Amino acid sequence: MDMMTDLYPSRVAPRPELRARHDPVVYGTAETGPLPSASLSRYERNGYLAFDQLLPESEVRDLRAELDRLWAWAGDAKDETIIREPSSQEVRSVFAIHRGDGLFARLAADRRIVGMAEQILGGPVYIHQSRVNFKKGFTGKEFYWHSDFETWHVEDGMPRMRAFSLSIALTDNLPHNGPLMVIPGSHRRYVACVGTTPEDHYKASLRRQEYGVPDEESLVGLVAEGGLAAPTGKAGAAVLFDCNTMHGSNSNITPLPRSNIFIVYNSVENALVAPFGGHKPRPEFVATRNATPLTAA
Amino acid sequence: MDMMTDLYPSRVAPRPELRARHDPVVYGTAETGPLPSASLSRYERNGYLAFDQLLPESEVRDLRAELDRLWAWAGDAKDETIIREPSSQEVRSVFAIHRGDGLFARLAADRRIVGMAEQILGGPVYIHQSRVNFKKGFTGKEFYWHSDFETWHVEDGMPRMRAFSLSIALTDNLPHNGPLMVIPGSHRRYVACVGTTPEDHYKASLRRQEYGVPDEESLVGLVAEGGLAAPTGKAGAAVLFDCNTMHGSNSNITPLPRSNIFIVYNSVENALVAPFGGHKPRPEFVATRNATPLTAA
Repeated sequence: MDMMTDLYPSRVAPRPELRARHDPVVYGTAETGPLPSASLSRYERNGYLAFDQLLPESEVRDLRAELDRLWAWAGDAKDETIIREPSSQEVRSVFAIHRGDGLFARLAADRRIVGMAEQILGGPVYIHQSRVNFKKGFTGKEFYWHSDFETWHVEDGMPRMRAFSLSIALTDNLPHNGPLMVIPGSHRRYVACVGTTPEDHYKASLRRQEYGVPDEESLVGLVAEGGLAAPTGKAGAAVLFDCNTMHGSNSNITPLPRSNIFIVYNSVENALVAPFGGHKPRPEFVATRNATPLTAA
Repeated sequence: MDMMTDLYPSRVAPRPELRARHDPVVYGTAETGPLPSASLSRYERNGYLAFDQLLPESEVRDLRAELDRLWAWAGDAKDETIIREPSSQEVRSVFAIHRGDGLFARLAADRRIVGMAEQILGGPVYIHQSRVNFKKGFTGKEFYWHSDFETWHVEDGMPRMRAFSLSIALTDNLPHNGPLMVIPGSHRRYVACVGTTPEDHYKASLRRQEYGVPDEESLVGLVAEGGLAAPTGKAGAAVLFDCNTMHGSNSNITPLPRSNIFIVYNSVENALVAPFGGHKPRPEFVATRNATPLTAA
């Protein structure tokens, strides 16, 4: 593959465009991992898979305690991995939680999960990005619609669509506390966005996205075709979604926090190259450039 | 009743307080109107009633056309009844839609609805306030938790709890386009809020509430007791909720607008007096001081 060919240009044309996907969605088969072929077909068709209970309660309890420690630390700490809400100092996200050897790191390298990643992505994988989104009660703000891949391609240099996110609920994800919404089938299209990317854009964009934002007409079209889904579930539930599945979430005025872990798995054959937007790459804590395959835990 | 006694002081104490309600919720009986006693008991207990289909499809179609005309007019018009979103010029609400003799006015005076109002409020009623909240797709912002009564009491001089709102869906109200959420049972308590009220507060508060905001601890307590409900339904569905029921709604990033009519019925025996907050009353389009009973249509 010639890495210099940009199969997914974005933020270059004066008008948005709905283009075709050039990559498979599922790279493996039912024989190469834990997911049965019905799940693989569903994932291929819809661009996501929901798990009612990926993790047992006891594990969730431990992860929740770790989450509380992370929240307490992030409150006062000054660290590049801590992202605050757009109009307050409240912590919105903490990135790179898979580093080190804590609970989150062990979870990210857990064989049950890595097995699914290797199956879907067709071979060895590494973690491109990880984070916790806290979305606290009362004040948690929305995450507007976006395809992760659009940003990862333009700003990080991810060449092809061969990655996915796993979002694990550490608190109950209810219809009303701003659950993750996906547009089923949207992963089969690519919304080329309008606008250029300012240098060091990520510092603002992790708080509130302003570039790489899909246009309303494309979103209307995608929803008309595929509808909307918002898989909800108890803490321990999870959603696995393709890197190009259009997703977002509403605000959360309920008292009930919606705190989720996101771990992004990428194929080692899809390691980052120079960003297609032409800027310098975003820092390691947002997008690692080290594609060493995960060693199974 | 001595109108000068403030049974529901708010925005005066240095700390928020959860107080008791001193008024009935249902003033009539099953004999005095269209609602059966099971509905009245449910309303008394929960502080709201949901109707799957208050209006038939043909009526909804006509009202939707009227809504589109209102939206088109409000786009450019300069009128005090038009309220725009807090950080854009997009129309958030239009008030006083029950005036005149258009479709909305006829709906507000419709015998089916007024009959319920007279039953619940125990006698003749008038319309205290009416509005359309558009909550357009993509950009519709949240309405934070509030008890309407708190504001109507402090800023308008509504003496007692003897009013309710009817919210009628003119577009489908889905779990994910920012439906009205209520805290069941919250109408039996009164959350006295903290903070004073600036003069002419309404101009900002109709865009985004900053005074008369309930504290988080009280909200946590109310939700722990009563949970959360968000009745959804097709266009034509409705929610009738007590003036003191704590309610709010999240933002709406979906392409699907959540446009609702709100009509507030108040008992003529509960007509406005001088505002309990001590300021000059808000203007007629937000809170009429003319308590002439509705003539049945």
